[in-house]
Amino acid sequence: MATLIERKRDAGALTPDEWRELIRAHTAGDVPDYQMSALLMAIFFRGLEPAELEALTDAMLRSGDQLHFEGSGAPVVDKHSTGGVGDKTSLLLAPMVASCGVLVPMMSGRGLGHTGGTLDKLESIPGFRTDLRLRDAEAQIRRLGCAMIGQTPEIAPADRQLYALRDVTATVESIPLISASIMSKKLAEGLDGLVLDVKAGSGAFIPEPDRARVLAETMIALGEARGCRVVALVTAMDRPLGHALGNALEIEEAIDGLRGGGPADLLELTFALGVEMLLVAGAASTSEEARRMLEDSIASGRALERFQAIIEAQGGNPAVVDDPAALPQAPVERIWAAPHDGIVTRIEPRPIGRAITALGGGRLKVGDAIDPAVGFLITAKPGDRVSRGQPLATILARTDAGAGEAAAALDAAIVVGEEGAPLPLVLERITSAAVETR
Amino acid sequence: MATLIERKRDAGALTPDEWRELIRAHTAGDVPDYQMSALLMAIFFRGLEPAELEALTDAMLRSGDQLHFEGSGAPVVDKHSTGGVGDKTSLLLAPMVASCGVLVPMMSGRGLGHTGGTLDKLESIPGFRTDLRLRDAEAQIRRLGCAMIGQTPEIAPADRQLYALRDVTATVESIPLISASIMSKKLAEGLDGLVLDVKAGSGAFIPEPDRARVLAETMIALGEARGCRVVALVTAMDRPLGHALGNALEIEEAIDGLRGGGPADLLELTFALGVEMLLVAGAASTSEEARRMLEDSIASGRALERFQAIIEAQGGNPAVVDDPAALPQAPVERIWAAPHDGIVTRIEPRPIGRAITALGGGRLKVGDAIDPAVGFLITAKPGDRVSRGQPLATILARTDAGAGEAAAALDAAIVVGEEGAPLPLVLERITSAAVETR
Repeated sequence: MATLIERKRDAGALTPDEWRELIRAHTAGDVPDYQMSALLMAIFFRGLEPAELEALTDAMLRSGDQLHFEGSGAPVVDKHSTGGVGDKTSLLLAPMVASCGVLVPMMSGRGLGHTGGTLDKLESIPGFRTDLRLRDAEAQIRRLGCAMIGQTPEIAPADRQLYALRDVTATVESIPLISASIMSKKLAEGLDGLVLDVKAGSGAFIPEPDRARVLAETMIALGEARGCRVVALVTAMDRPLGHALGNALEIEEAIDGLRGGGPADLLELTFALGVEMLLVAGAASTSEEARRMLEDSIASGRALERFQAIIEAQGGNPAVVDDPAALPQAPVERIWAAPHDGIVTRIEPRPIGRAITALGGGRLKVGDAIDPAVGFLITAKPGDRVSRGQPLATILARTDAGAGEAAAALDAAIVVGEEGAPLPLVLERITSAAVETR
Repeated sequence: MATLIERKRDAGALTPDEWRELIRAHTAGDVPDYQMSALLMAIFFRGLEPAELEALTDAMLRSGDQLHFEGSGAPVVDKHSTGGVGDKTSLLLAPMVASCGVLVPMMSGRGLGHTGGTLDKLESIPGFRTDLRLRDAEAQIRRLGCAMIGQTPEIAPADRQLYALRDVTATVESIPLISASIMSKKLAEGLDGLVLDVKAGSGAFIPEPDRARVLAETMIALGEARGCRVVALVTAMDRPLGHALGNALEIEEAIDGLRGGGPADLLELTFALGVEMLLVAGAASTSEEARRMLEDSIASGRALERFQAIIEAQGGNPAVVDDPAALPQAPVERIWAAPHDGIVTRIEPRPIGRAITALGGGRLKVGDAIDPAVGFLITAKPGDRVSRGQPLATILARTDAGAGEAAAALDAAIVVGEEGAPLPLVLERITSAAVETR
């Protein structure tokens, strides 16, 4: 093992067999964490060659069970986002795309750091369970077209162990390790296609668009090598997505969207991603056709019905779809207004995400409890012209003190200045063809 | 801790307080090995700033007990070599310098890999114990001017733990980590002065003279920062030192040297290092004076008597000094002769060191038992003109088969060719003044 670490340290490559044996041995406890963490740090500095990355991802994927949809006759597609503030597109896309005849095994994560997580949002629906066993999730997906679940213990246990180690050894921010972690789990879903939403901008884990593109290309190559069609959109996370930020608030906004309402930017990104999902699924042959299918899923009410059916199937209270008051409500509400005339220059996602955590709506470490009701409704967007005293946001808090702190956070996070020109929402579309020609 | 690893990973510096707390916590078991090994790998890539290295070394030093010679009235000086093949200078220098009125707390290591270790050599003397307790060693040094011991459990336990971790995580070959490891132990000896023998050439752990110089300068700076005068000689390890290679054989050659005999290169290096030891001790004011003192220590018999007294004090059989037959003897002796006329071009230390290990005279891993009797007497030196059939070496082995393998090793390690021009024995002398002007 020391020899393998040394080789990677000195910019050499491990063979596919060495990666397979290494992952097997680490998962079995035969390679101690202190050697694996040294190797992870060497990978941080030296990277992985494509053949190494494929072998590592394959070994992680094979460390556990996989979903199987053979004989279902339907294409299987998922979407994955690298994480942001206010991103509830999964909540809309899963029922929309499922109602178009595509199977969507939506395996999501929890919020950590400044970002929210789809699982936490779903669990703000009273009774909703995300901890389905793999075979139960599989059956639900065959029946309803979708299940919205966490990474089950059966899926890629090697990734679970590695991720826990990376988290405490400052080896999370490595593009090959991020890619292997995401793709080992996604490929275990038995996908025909995958759409990646790779965030860039100040609120993204990888803010630099160039590095976000490399991450996208790395994951695309991994998917395509296993026969999974992958398309990535690099999208802006220099401001929150939509208006609602906080778990129950985002469920309510997603339901609005499924009902035909919702903020323009949320709908723009949801449709952009949904079109790609239907295209990689082969369920539509042109973007226009895909868009019409998605619009019809909403206009017809099918997407909302499907969401309600999923909620009911997973133990949640389906009444939340028609009655937002059935979601947890925060007792303290406070308006935040523009401090002076001007143009909204910046709305920084990171401090806002941290403020949600401070309100109790996020977690500082794995296992922290979450207050589902708290958060923000920020109706302003960068570029908006505003007047002094104009309400730009509503704070939803558990206590007056919490609301005061949250207001102070907005004072710092929202800048009203002379001009504002945010990034376009979709910065770039990347496919394997683009990879091949680079 | 993850934050500290991340900072180092991103080329930042930890504060002295952070280093102190980190070493304390790791030694106490509060920081797990998997975080420390990730940090060590980050240090491998990013290095340490001088203030970090000082704090780390200081924390390692303070993790244990120290030798104290206050009130002895004598200067305290040691020599440290980075390790080679045939280097028995410590065995000569300790009694020579001690007999000149200097206290020499000679704390040495064991052989590992292709290099020999002073402790293993000493333990080939029947009965010799190197595992003295710290206070007993201190008392012997005050009484006899010298003790020749291993790193006691009381000295720098943090280094012991870190070294074991580095050994299995491919983080040994880092100049700051090597420097901190060596200097934390040496400074715990309560030294006024230290002479470093930093080996360069194909048989050295750091073969490149430029990197050997950086290692020397790094250690000099660490010593000087704590008021210990340090001088380094960068010396050639592109061929073995002396003729005798193997544990008991080297004891015998060292005794020869103390008696006024011995190979020219061994004596040249011994005197060069000894002169520096007396100078940093302040026991001599010029090189010429120092050399005369050392010559007199041998001519008068004082150095040999002192060696005998040390052997006796540490439980060894003092008869070995007058009767080499009291040392372990190998049953099989075989001559190795020049294969053709020519000039000795190369005598490679690494394969020879490995051949000693194969004979049983070295160890592949910590804890392996050693056969003290086996080894080589190689009388040829690079540059020697030799004739076909001329005996150049004697193999001392336990079995005929072993002797055969050793002969094959010499076939590969000793090259007789057209010309030979070895490196000068002392390549460079480095002092803190040189550091300051660089």
